[in-house]
Amino acid sequence: MAKFLTNREENYAQWYNDLVIKADLAENSVVRGCMVIKPYGYAIWEKIQAELDRKFKATGHVNAYFPLFIPKSFFSKEAKHVEGFAKECAIVTHYRLKKDESGNGLIVDPAAKLEEELIVRPTSETIIWNSYKNWIQSYRDLPILINQWANVVRWEMRTRLFLRTAEFLWQEGHTAHATSQEAIEETERMLGVYSDFAEDFMALPVIKGYKSENERFAGAIDTYTIEALMQDGKALQAGTSHFLGQNFAKAFDVQFTDKTGKLDYVWATSWGLSTRMIGALIMAHSDNNGLVLPPRLAPIQVVIIPIYKNPEQLETISVAAKKIMSSLEFLGISVKYDDRDTNKPGWKFANYELKGVPVRLAIGPRDIENSTVEVARRDTLEKETVPMNGIEAHITGLLEDIQNNIYHKALEFRKANTFYVDKWDDFVNILDNQGGFIMAHWDGTAETEEKIKEETKATIRCIPFDSPDEDGKCIYSGKPSKRRVLFARSY
Amino acid sequence: MAKFLTNREENYAQWYNDLVIKADLAENSVVRGCMVIKPYGYAIWEKIQAELDRKFKATGHVNAYFPLFIPKSFFSKEAKHVEGFAKECAIVTHYRLKKDESGNGLIVDPAAKLEEELIVRPTSETIIWNSYKNWIQSYRDLPILINQWANVVRWEMRTRLFLRTAEFLWQEGHTAHATSQEAIEETERMLGVYSDFAEDFMALPVIKGYKSENERFAGAIDTYTIEALMQDGKALQAGTSHFLGQNFAKAFDVQFTDKTGKLDYVWATSWGLSTRMIGALIMAHSDNNGLVLPPRLAPIQVVIIPIYKNPEQLETISVAAKKIMSSLEFLGISVKYDDRDTNKPGWKFANYELKGVPVRLAIGPRDIENSTVEVARRDTLEKETVPMNGIEAHITGLLEDIQNNIYHKALEFRKANTFYVDKWDDFVNILDNQGGFIMAHWDGTAETEEKIKEETKATIRCIPFDSPDEDGKCIYSGKPSKRRVLFARSY
Repeated sequence: MAKFLTNREENYAQWYNDLVIKADLAENSVVRGCMVIKPYGYAIWEKIQAELDRKFKATGHVNAYFPLFIPKSFFSKEAKHVEGFAKECAIVTHYRLKKDESGNGLIVDPAAKLEEELIVRPTSETIIWNSYKNWIQSYRDLPILINQWANVVRWEMRTRLFLRTAEFLWQEGHTAHATSQEAIEETERMLGVYSDFAEDFMALPVIKGYKSENERFAGAIDTYTIEALMQDGKALQAGTSHFLGQNFAKAFDVQFTDKTGKLDYVWATSWGLSTRMIGALIMAHSDNNGLVLPPRLAPIQVVIIPIYKNPEQLETISVAAKKIMSSLEFLGISVKYDDRDTNKPGWKFANYELKGVPVRLAIGPRDIENSTVEVARRDTLEKETVPMNGIEAHITGLLEDIQNNIYHKALEFRKANTFYVDKWDDFVNILDNQGGFIMAHWDGTAETEEKIKEETKATIRCIPFDSPDEDGKCIYSGKPSKRRVLFARSY
Repeated sequence: MAKFLTNREENYAQWYNDLVIKADLAENSVVRGCMVIKPYGYAIWEKIQAELDRKFKATGHVNAYFPLFIPKSFFSKEAKHVEGFAKECAIVTHYRLKKDESGNGLIVDPAAKLEEELIVRPTSETIIWNSYKNWIQSYRDLPILINQWANVVRWEMRTRLFLRTAEFLWQEGHTAHATSQEAIEETERMLGVYSDFAEDFMALPVIKGYKSENERFAGAIDTYTIEALMQDGKALQAGTSHFLGQNFAKAFDVQFTDKTGKLDYVWATSWGLSTRMIGALIMAHSDNNGLVLPPRLAPIQVVIIPIYKNPEQLETISVAAKKIMSSLEFLGISVKYDDRDTNKPGWKFANYELKGVPVRLAIGPRDIENSTVEVARRDTLEKETVPMNGIEAHITGLLEDIQNNIYHKALEFRKANTFYVDKWDDFVNILDNQGGFIMAHWDGTAETEEKIKEETKATIRCIPFDSPDEDGKCIYSGKPSKRRVLFARSY
């Protein structure tokens, strides 16, 4: 169904944009950089939310809500945080409009100027730690394990639907602990939650690792990340978990009395995952026919399409279709029966392929005669005719199989596109000609990292947790190195 | 446990504020007018969200997300809407901060001024109808049945936790229809969803009715409302559903081709319910001991507290408690077992009363001997000792009973405080001395409504759907009237 989409191999960026628009996931709004998330795209976000929320609660977290606005002065309190976040942001300066006396329009009322400007939150560490100050006196008040579902704004100059937008939706966890060790364990635990979620639910294989100092969250002692490989050979950071040490506690003077009666600053973590993940989902799995959604994430898991020539046939088919639908729904499978007469079956087939529905059932008069159903799977586009009797068990198994197949396909792709490189020429060649993950030695300095970025646009995506000790020489400087790190160009 | 709270009868406003703070529902933030919704308050909001979202989906709606920011000029497009919403609002004028060269702080970069100011949404009709313009060409694109869960900002000068805050959380439904009748039916349907939700889930009896022209949503042809009576005799508007006619379609030029090929403007509704509902919940049911939560809404439905003198006793009690807990949880009841040794049972009793947990179980050594449990219900504060055997059925029934009792208590209170009044002196007297709902005749003019408001601070809460035809004379002007309307002072 190439008519819907630009060919992925010809223009990957255009293919991506076409797909987001044509599959009705999102569109650009009239407000520069802000997107409208359309119902089908939002339904995917709701699935992501439900699963993450379940995982957060299972690990002892609760939700809360903090203000959208942050006083400007808060950003200056944490020395590094201000560098990262208080630059490109939406600034509220006034609180009233009035009629323009010379015309019909509205103007900002100059009398309604705020004493201190308010920043629309780009992330909430500052406003939350300002609250925690009043909540924490003693070790008995710890840990605090809070998550927030919210919108945030970062005034990006170049935006792309889901991947980089001025406003986006996310969750941000903000926890407070009595000891450094407990906070580090929390940072690791939440990266584990993200990586399990990405792999088991989104069928997205990820590499877990540390960020280099350059790439750390502004204000963090350590940033852990999960990095995924997209089909164009670029990396995408899919979630991060930060060990913040005592930086924000010191900036907002949050101290507690420990069990021995000693005063100390509180230890912190924060961790976030955003609507960007929908971009990752699209770019990791989809093809020239449209979206490929892993069944656990698909808003519609099975679509049933009747093939008929007259109302009598439709009626007979509908009886069979609705019986299958209700027995699948009883098993918790989401099913849509599309008997609209406004579109032909061929159009419907193409449309549900575009939308990535994992399984399509087609039922025609001959299927009724033979008690069969035509079953098509979206991931491989394979079709087979199966008996109606026992169709529920067949589909349950098929959905599992599709989930696994999508994951393993992505994993195989990553394996085939991960390169252990020891020569600078190879490093540059691979980046320019095929992309992918490059495991290479690095001398550990920010200067080298910066130069590699300048010359190749590749960055250190992470220092993988499982990268083994290995003596080698830095791919750029030739200086000694103890382990390989993961380089790639990235979104 | 009057020590926690100001007495409700002495100072209702202070009692309310104390309760919100002491029960850990919310607190004021450093940003004027913006609150922090704490985990226990947010857990109640999550319960509200889950139930409403289920009801919206069951009536065919889907969720989506539109931008936080609205271009200033959009507000001028609908003549009445601008009057209602484009006055007190948060205005984004700039998009970048920079270091103040004379000091350490940050200043707004004057070079980063927006061409057109952006308003933080106070409600989303304008930005949504601007999108619908591109989504709707033909009757085949209709209806659109979309809901959005979002934060909104209205720059209120006098704020109160939950009841009136600059930023609040809500849902806003925005639907588009091919005919006036269909849109009116939708407006009615959603008011029905709100009233069922309020009565069955929140145990809050409500009066359904039309708003007078003065009290309508800015830009609506008709506003339907549900009005609830608080324990201090004031009314609270708990949810509204608006028939917008073709006003927004005309303002944003949204036309469609109907089945006959004729072009027409699209018909619209919008409807919203906010975190204000948590204020209603508190003020309708709670007492001097704290919150009283209807079981369907309570984040913790049953708390179990062990009474013990030594670790051996605790161990035996814990075995029994955990058995009860797991069998209750199996039935879908949320249970907390509080075996903390940091607080005494009496403190725990008072604390869970303050937090409104519907059922408290206490188990002591004698209960273990006798195979009994002490069961206390929060609504009546009654206690009884019941056999451990069969406790699950007892508690299931008790939770139902509490839900019904809270509703009927509120309904009885409303009946006792609804007055049919025909004399102006009585009208004023009741308002000044006892409060409540007043059913009185009104001549139907905005002038009279305005004068009554000026003289008594009472407004027409609604023209009840079920108010019968009845000839009478306006309570204020003496002019003829055909039916009674509902007056009250309100939040």
